[in-house]
Amino acid sequence: CSFLLFFNDYISIAKAEDKNTYLSKRRSLLQEEWKITTGGGVVLNADELKVNSILMKWKAAEMSEAAKPKGFFPPAYNFMTVKAKIEESDVFRFIKKMPKGAALHIHDTSMASPHWLIRNVTYRPDCYMCIDKTGQLLFRLTKSQPVSSQCKWDTVNQYRSRSGNSSLFDAYLYGNLTIFTDHPAKAYRSQYEVWHQFGSAFQAVEGLVFNTEIFGAYFEQALTELYADNVQYVETRALLGPVVDLNGAVQTKDWAVTVYNEVQHKFSKQHPAFFGAKSIYITQRSKDLVSMMSDVKEAIRLREKFPDSVVGFDLVGMEDQGPTLEYFLDALLYPSQNGIKLPYFFHAGETDWEGMSVDANILDALLLNTSRIGHGYAIMKHPHIRKLLRERDIAIEVNPISNQVLMLVDDLRNHPAAPLMAEGFPLVISSDDPAMWGSTGISHDFYEAFMGLGGAWANLATLKKLASDSIRYSATGQTEKAALYKLWQKAWDVFIKDMLRQHWP
Amino acid sequence: CSFLLFFNDYISIAKAEDKNTYLSKRRSLLQEEWKITTGGGVVLNADELKVNSILMKWKAAEMSEAAKPKGFFPPAYNFMTVKAKIEESDVFRFIKKMPKGAALHIHDTSMASPHWLIRNVTYRPDCYMCIDKTGQLLFRLTKSQPVSSQCKWDTVNQYRSRSGNSSLFDAYLYGNLTIFTDHPAKAYRSQYEVWHQFGSAFQAVEGLVFNTEIFGAYFEQALTELYADNVQYVETRALLGPVVDLNGAVQTKDWAVTVYNEVQHKFSKQHPAFFGAKSIYITQRSKDLVSMMSDVKEAIRLREKFPDSVVGFDLVGMEDQGPTLEYFLDALLYPSQNGIKLPYFFHAGETDWEGMSVDANILDALLLNTSRIGHGYAIMKHPHIRKLLRERDIAIEVNPISNQVLMLVDDLRNHPAAPLMAEGFPLVISSDDPAMWGSTGISHDFYEAFMGLGGAWANLATLKKLASDSIRYSATGQTEKAALYKLWQKAWDVFIKDMLRQHWP
Ligand SMILES: [Zn+2]
Ligand SMILES: [Zn+2]
Repeated sequence: CSFLLFFNDYISIAKAEDKNTYLSKRRSLLQEEWKITTGGGVVLNADELKVNSILMKWKAAEMSEAAKPKGFFPPAYNFMTVKAKIEESDVFRFIKKMPKGAALHIHDTSMASPHWLIRNVTYRPDCYMCIDKTGQLLFRLTKSQPVSSQCKWDTVNQYRSRSGNSSLFDAYLYGNLTIFTDHPAKAYRSQYEVWHQFGSAFQAVEGLVFNTEIFGAYFEQALTELYADNVQYVETRALLGPVVDLNGAVQTKDWAVTVYNEVQHKFSKQHPAFFGAKSIYITQRSKDLVSMMSDVKEAIRLREKFPDSVVGFDLVGMEDQGPTLEYFLDALLYPSQNGIKLPYFFHAGETDWEGMSVDANILDALLLNTSRIGHGYAIMKHPHIRKLLRERDIAIEVNPISNQVLMLVDDLRNHPAAPLMAEGFPLVISSDDPAMWGSTGISHDFYEAFMGLGGAWANLATLKKLASDSIRYSATGQTEKAALYKLWQKAWDVFIKDMLRQHWP
Repeated sequence: CSFLLFFNDYISIAKAEDKNTYLSKRRSLLQEEWKITTGGGVVLNADELKVNSILMKWKAAEMSEAAKPKGFFPPAYNFMTVKAKIEESDVFRFIKKMPKGAALHIHDTSMASPHWLIRNVTYRPDCYMCIDKTGQLLFRLTKSQPVSSQCKWDTVNQYRSRSGNSSLFDAYLYGNLTIFTDHPAKAYRSQYEVWHQFGSAFQAVEGLVFNTEIFGAYFEQALTELYADNVQYVETRALLGPVVDLNGAVQTKDWAVTVYNEVQHKFSKQHPAFFGAKSIYITQRSKDLVSMMSDVKEAIRLREKFPDSVVGFDLVGMEDQGPTLEYFLDALLYPSQNGIKLPYFFHAGETDWEGMSVDANILDALLLNTSRIGHGYAIMKHPHIRKLLRERDIAIEVNPISNQVLMLVDDLRNHPAAPLMAEGFPLVISSDDPAMWGSTGISHDFYEAFMGLGGAWANLATLKKLASDSIRYSATGQTEKAALYKLWQKAWDVFIKDMLRQHWP
C-alpha cells in the first residue's frame, strides 16, 4: 500500500565499537571534510607551513576571543561599522601584505578613493556642482559656467567657501560620493533604500570621473590603490563613459578603452610587479531590448578592435528591479547565433528572492554560456544549476562586503559562499565597489572570506587557493595567464620569506 | 609545468541555437530544479490541484506585494515584530487549518501558552513567587509559605495586589515567562543575551509546571493547542521534572512519564483526530561526564519500562557554550557498546560558527547513529556529512522561528533550510519552543518555511510533503506509523474538501 514508503526503523543499534575506533573514524571524516574545501587540495611547502602556523596562531586568538560570551566578531556586523576594528587585526594586516592575484569583479567608477576625487578634482576652478530638486548632487568639469533652469550651478569652491567649513563640506561631499555611514541600520531601512543612495553616489562620481581631464588619472589612482593592496591584475566592469571634454564634446568608447589601455600599460611598466588591467564592457539593465542589442554590437565591435583590452560583456543595476537576462534574450543570443565570440560575465542571482524571475538569472547565465558569474548569491537555492556550473568549472565572483552593505545578509557567516567554500566550489573573492563603502582594494573582502566564510579551519592553503584561482579564472589568454601566474608566484615567494623573517622566532 | 592546470579557454562560443530551442532547454532545467525540491515528487490529485490554485493565488499576491520597493516580507523580520502581520495573511490562515502531521521538535515546558499558566496557576492561593538578587523570578506551589534568606517569598496574589494593576502585573509575568519583546534588536544585543533570558524564562516556567498539581494539566493544555493548530501527533523533548508535590516531595521520572501517557491517552480518546504523544528524554548538556552517564542509563531504564512512550535521548542547552557531544563520548557510546538500544535525537549544529568544536556536533551525531538531527543549522557548511546523512535518510528538524529569535539569522531567506528544501533534503518543520516567543503549535513555522524557505515556487505539494514527511520521520513503530498516516490522510482529505467548498468559485 502507498504508505509503506513511509516506514522506517529508528531503533537500529549503532555498531558497537570502542572509543579509539570511533575517534579514528571521526578524524578521517574531518580530514575528508577538509580535503574538499577551498584550499583543501593545496600542499604547502616547508616555509609556507611555518608562515601558516604564524597566521593560524593569530587567527585562533582572534576567533576564540570573538566566540566568548561578550566577544565581538567583525564579519557578523555591517562592514561600515567595523572597518576600523578589522584594520586592527593581525590577520587583516597579513592578508593586506599577501599577494592576492587578480581582482575580477570591480567596477571602474568605484575603484579609487573618493578622497582622491575630493582633493584632486573638486578643488579645480573648472569643477562645478549643483543640487537638484531631489537633493541629488551633480558635478561637471567645464570651461564655462553651466546654466540650467532646473539646478543652480556654481563651482564646488564657491559652495565650499560659502559653507564656512571646508573639512565639514568635504565630509558632506564624501557622504554624497559614497553610501558610507556610521549608522547603516538607521540610514537604510531596505535594500531599495540603500540601492537608491548607491545609484545617487554613482551619478555624482560619474560627473567628476567622466571627463577627459580626470578619466585617465582616476584609473591610474585605482591601479595605484590596487597595487598598494598587493593585487597583481584587475578586470574591471567598465562603463567607458560617456566621457566629455571641457567643452562638453562627447568622446567615443574607443577613446575610453585607449586611455585605460595606455594607463595600465604605463603603470605596469613603472611597476613590474603589476601585470595589468582589462575591461569587461557593462551596460545598465534598465533599458529596452533595442538599446541592449546596440550595446551587444558595440561590445562586439570594441572587443574585435581591442582584443587584448576588452574581454567581455555584462549588465549592471539592481537585479531585483529587473529586467531579467531572459528579457534580453534576443540581444544576448545574437553573438552565438551569428558565430561571433562575446564572452559573458553576468551579474546573476544578486538577490534574496527564490523562485522569482530574478533568481532565474543564474539559470540564464549558465545557458548563455557565461564565463563567470558575478555574485551568484542565490546559487545555493539552485542545486541543479550549481552542479552544472561546477561541471563546466564556471567560477562565482564573491563580493562579501558588497552583499552585506547592500543588505542581502547581515552576519556573513550566513553568506552562501560559506557552503560554497566548504564544498570547494570554484570561486574568486573581489570587492565590487570598494570606494562606495570606504574600502580599498580587495583585502577587506579577503579578510571577511577568511574569517567569516571559510570557518575556523581556513588557513594559508585556503588563501593561496583563492589567490591562484583568481588567476585561473581570469579572462587572460594562455600565454598571459602563465606570465601572470609566474609574476604572482614570485611575489608570493617574497611574501613568504618576508613573513618568516619578521615573525618566525 | 605546474600552472598548466590553470589554463582555461573563456572564449568558447555558445552553441548557436534559436530562441525556441533555448526556451525549451530553459523550461526543462526549471522543471528539473522543481523536481528535486521538497514536494517536487508529489503528484496532486484533481481536488488538490484546485486547492493549490487557490493557495498559490494568495501566495503570489502576497509575494509580489512584498517584493515591491516599499514592500514588506514578514520572513525577513524577527518573528516577534511581525507575528500580527503573519496572522493577517491568507496563506497563514490556510496553513493553520491544514493538517500538518507531527510536531517532532518541541520542548515540553514551552509548548503551552504562558497566558494559560498565568490564568490557571499564578492566581492559586498556594502559588508563591520571589525575585532573587539577579532579578530572576522563581515560582513554587506549596502548602506552606516558603522561607529563604536569599529571596523573599510571597504569594503571587500578594505581589499582584501590591502592584495595584493586575493586567500590567500579568504582562510583567508574561515578559518573565518568555523572551517575548516588541523590540528584540534593542532587548538582545547578542546570542548570549537572548539565551540568558531564554534560560531565565525556562527557570520561571518550570517553577509553575513542575508540580504534581499542574504537570498533567499543562501537558493537556499543550495538546489542546497543538490539536487546535491541526497537528496530529507530537514527540516532545521532555525534561520530566523533577516534579514536586505541594509538600515538596520529589516525584520520579516514572511518575512524569506515566502522567504524560495518561494525559495523551485520554486526550486521544476524547479527540479521535489526534493520534498521541511520545517523549524524548532530554538532559542539560552543561554537566560532567559522570552525570551524563547516569542520564543515559536512566533513559535506557525508562525506555525499557515505557517502550511506547519514551523513544529516545537528547542533550539540550546552548551548544556554543558546550560541552560537545564528543566530550560525552564515553556515555553516549555506552548503549551501543553494551548492545542496548537507545535512539538518539541530538540537537546538533545550532550555531553560526564553522570549524569550531561546536559545529562538529553534527559529525558526532552522525557517527553516533542519530535518528534525526535537531536544527542542524550548520549542515550546509558540512557537505560531506550532509551527503552521508542523506544516504542514511536522517531528517533535519528545522525550527525557523527559533533560529531567528535566538539570533542565528535575521532574514529567513538566508536560513540554511532554503538550500536544503531546494535540494529535497529530508527535513521536518517544527517550532522548538513556541510559547517562548508568542507562537502556538507549528503553523507560524510552517508559514515561514512555505514563504521564506521554500521560495516562490513552494506550493501545496511542498506542504503535503512536509506534513507527510513529519510522519515518515517520526519515532513510531510500523503499525503505529501506518495508523497515524491514515489518520492524517483522512484529516487531509476533509481539509481539501473544506477548502474547495469555501473557496472554489
Ligand atoms: Zn558588481
Ligand atoms: Zn530544541
